[in-house]
Amino acid sequence: NTLFDIAVLPGDGIGAEVVSPCLALMQAAAERVGGFGLSYRQLPAGAQEYLRSGVALPNETLKECRAADAILLGAMGWPEVRYENGTEIAPQLDLRTELGLFAGVRPARALPGVAPVLADQRAANLDFVIIRESVEGLFALRDEGQVIDDREARDTMVITRAVCEQLFDFSFAYARQRKQAGGAGRLTCVDKANVFASMAFFRKIFDERSKGFGDIEADHAYVDATALNLVRRPWDLDVIVTENMFGDILSDLAAGLIGGMGYAPSADIGLDHAVFQPCHGSAPDITGKGVANPTATILSGAMMLDWLGRRHDVPQAVKAGQLLSDAVDEAFRRGIRPFESGGDATTETVAEAVMDSMGTLSHSEA
Amino acid sequence: NTLFDIAVLPGDGIGAEVVSPCLALMQAAAERVGGFGLSYRQLPAGAQEYLRSGVALPNETLKECRAADAILLGAMGWPEVRYENGTEIAPQLDLRTELGLFAGVRPARALPGVAPVLADQRAANLDFVIIRESVEGLFALRDEGQVIDDREARDTMVITRAVCEQLFDFSFAYARQRKQAGGAGRLTCVDKANVFASMAFFRKIFDERSKGFGDIEADHAYVDATALNLVRRPWDLDVIVTENMFGDILSDLAAGLIGGMGYAPSADIGLDHAVFQPCHGSAPDITGKGVANPTATILSGAMMLDWLGRRHDVPQAVKAGQLLSDAVDEAFRRGIRPFESGGDATTETVAEAVMDSMGTLSHSEA
Ligand SMILES: CC(C)[C@H](C(=O)O)[C@@H](O)C(=O)O
Ligand SMILES: CC(C)[C@H](C(=O)O)[C@@H](O)C(=O)O
Repeated sequence: NTLFDIAVLPGDGIGAEVVSPCLALMQAAAERVGGFGLSYRQLPAGAQEYLRSGVALPNETLKECRAADAILLGAMGWPEVRYENGTEIAPQLDLRTELGLFAGVRPARALPGVAPVLADQRAANLDFVIIRESVEGLFALRDEGQVIDDREARDTMVITRAVCEQLFDFSFAYARQRKQAGGAGRLTCVDKANVFASMAFFRKIFDERSKGFGDIEADHAYVDATALNLVRRPWDLDVIVTENMFGDILSDLAAGLIGGMGYAPSADIGLDHAVFQPCHGSAPDITGKGVANPTATILSGAMMLDWLGRRHDVPQAVKAGQLLSDAVDEAFRRGIRPFESGGDATTETVAEAVMDSMGTLSHSEA
Repeated sequence: NTLFDIAVLPGDGIGAEVVSPCLALMQAAAERVGGFGLSYRQLPAGAQEYLRSGVALPNETLKECRAADAILLGAMGWPEVRYENGTEIAPQLDLRTELGLFAGVRPARALPGVAPVLADQRAANLDFVIIRESVEGLFALRDEGQVIDDREARDTMVITRAVCEQLFDFSFAYARQRKQAGGAGRLTCVDKANVFASMAFFRKIFDERSKGFGDIEADHAYVDATALNLVRRPWDLDVIVTENMFGDILSDLAAGLIGGMGYAPSADIGLDHAVFQPCHGSAPDITGKGVANPTATILSGAMMLDWLGRRHDVPQAVKAGQLLSDAVDEAFRRGIRPFESGGDATTETVAEAVMDSMGTLSHSEA
C-alpha cells in the first residue's frame, strides 16, 4: 500500500479551522476506497509564527515541504503583521517561488443550490478553470520593489520563456484532461498583448506551444475584455491561462461568481511539488467563531488526492478525490448552507454533512 | 455667449458611427438650455490614419487637441494594424500621456430597464465610479518594454508621488462633488499594498492626501478582493481610485455589470485638458452595420458638458449635461433597447429616442 506523506500548514486565523475537517474527510475517503494511505505532519508557518520566531516560513518547515508528497495549506497572513516595507507576511508566495509552483489551478464550479450571483440561469452550472502563472509576472521581483526618495516607486513585471513553456504545456495538458471528462477542449490565453511587450511575448510563446496540442482549441483574449466576459458569459469559458497578477484578480472574481471565497479551491503545481489551499485568506473577522466555510479547503483536498493519484499511478487516490468532491456536491444538493451563503451551517455542520453524504455514495459511483 | 471649441476624433471602426449622434445631441442640449455654444472640429487619428500616413496621432491633431476646450473621441485601434513589437495602435493612450490626463473617470450607472446581469435586485440601481490613474502605473514605460534574446521580457510599474497627489486630490474632490448630489462620500483606494512596494507607496500617499478631506471617508481594499466585491456587493461602492492596469480591468468588469461596454462612458481628465470617450473599442465585427450602441458616447458627451460648465463657470453647460444625461435615462425608461441588449434599436433609433425624450424634459427639471 502506498502511503502519502502530507505536509500540513494550517497557518493563521481560520486556517486551522478549515484544515482540520479536510484532513478527516480525506482520510475517510482514502479508507473508503482503500489501496493507499495518508499520513499528516503539521508544520508552523505564517504571521503568528513570524511574531513568535521572527521567521514566517521556517527552514525546517520548508525542508519538510520539499520531502512531502504534497502540501495542504490553510490560510496565511494577518493585517497588522507586516514586513518593514509595509507588505504582508505571505509565506504562501514564498512556497510558490521556492518550490517552483508555476501553475496556480483555480477551478470555478458552481455547487448545487448555492444561490447564483448572476441572473442568467446558465450560471447555475458554471464550470471553468483559471490557471494563474504563480512564480513570476508582476510578482517576480516583489522583494526588490523599490521606493526612491519617497518620490517614486517601481515594481517589475518579468515573463520568461522557461516558465511560460512549462506553464502552457501544463495548461494544454490540463485542458486535454478536462476534454476527456467532457470539457470543451479550449485553452484561452489572457493577456494585454495589445499594450505590453512582456504580454506580447507571453502570447507568442503560447502560440508556439499550442502547436504541440492540435486537439485543443487555442484562443486569445485581453484581460480587460475577460473581466467583462466573466460577468457576461462565463458559461462559454473552459480553461484560461494568464499572468500572475491578472490571475489573482480574475480568480477572485470567478470565486465571487460561484458564491464567494469559501467555495474556491486551488492547487499550486510545479514539476516536483504541489500546494493545495483554499483561495480565501485568514479572515480575522470570523476567526474563532466556528463559522468559516470549509468547502474550498475540502475541495482543495479532493484536488490533492486526484493529483497524487495521477502522479504516482495510484488510481484509488484519483477515485478517492472524486468521491470527496462528489460528497461535497451531494451535501449541497441535500441543502446544507454555510453562513457565507446566508445559511446556518457551521464549519462542523458542513463537514458532517459531507461525511454523511460520502457514506451514501458508493465509491464505484465516484 | 461662451463658445466651446471641441476637437472631435472619430477614430476607427464604429467610432464615427457613435460620435455623430453624440455631436447632434450635445448641440441640441446646448440650444435647448442656451447661454453657450459648441463648435466642432473633426481631426484624424487612429489605425486607419496610421495606415494612410504612417502616423497614428498626427502632430497637427495633437496641436488642435491642445488648443481645444475639450476633446471627444470615438474609438481607436484595429486588430491587424500593429506596431513592430506586436502592440496595437492606440493614440488614446498617447493622448493621456501627452496631455497629462491622469484621472480616468469611469462611471458605472445602471440605466432603467436594461436587464441587470446580477441576480440581486439592488443591481438595478447601481451607481458607482472607478477612477483609473491613466498616465503611469504599469503603462508608464510601455514604449520601453523589452524582450531580451527571445528569453525574457519586462515591463515596469511606476508610481510617482507627483501624479498620485494630483490623482488623489482630484478623486477626493470628485467624491465630495458626488456627496453634494447625494453620494455616500466615500473614496476607496484599491491597490495590492500587501505585496508590492509600489502599491504600498500608492496607499501611503492616499492616506496622506486624505487628511485634507475630512468630510470624505477614506477607505482601502485590495484589487483581488475588489474584483470579488464588484460581483458580490457593488451597491456598497461609491468612488474607487486605483492604478492604471487595475483600473483597466475593473472598469471593464463594471461595464459588464451595467449591460456591456456600450453603456460605459468615460472622461480622461488632467489639469488643463480632458478627453471624453466611450470605454468600448472600434468593434470590427459590427462596424458599418449601423447597430453600435451610442449610449456610452452620448453619456460621455454629457460628462463633457458638465466638465466644461464647472471649469469655465458656465452653469448652463452643467445644465445641458444633466439634460442630456436625463434624456438618455428617459429614453430607456420608455423602453428603447439597443442590439447590444438583445433589442432592435439601431444606432440611429437610440439617438432619435434620446432626442425625443429631451424634447419632453423641461431643462429646469434637469
Ligand atoms: C494573500 C496574497 C498575497 C495572495 C496573492 O496575491 O497571491 C492571495 O491573494 C492569493 O490569491 O493567493
Ligand atoms: C485599447 C486599450 C489600449 C485601452 C487601454 O488599455 O487603456 C482600453 O482598454 C481602455 O480601457 O481605454
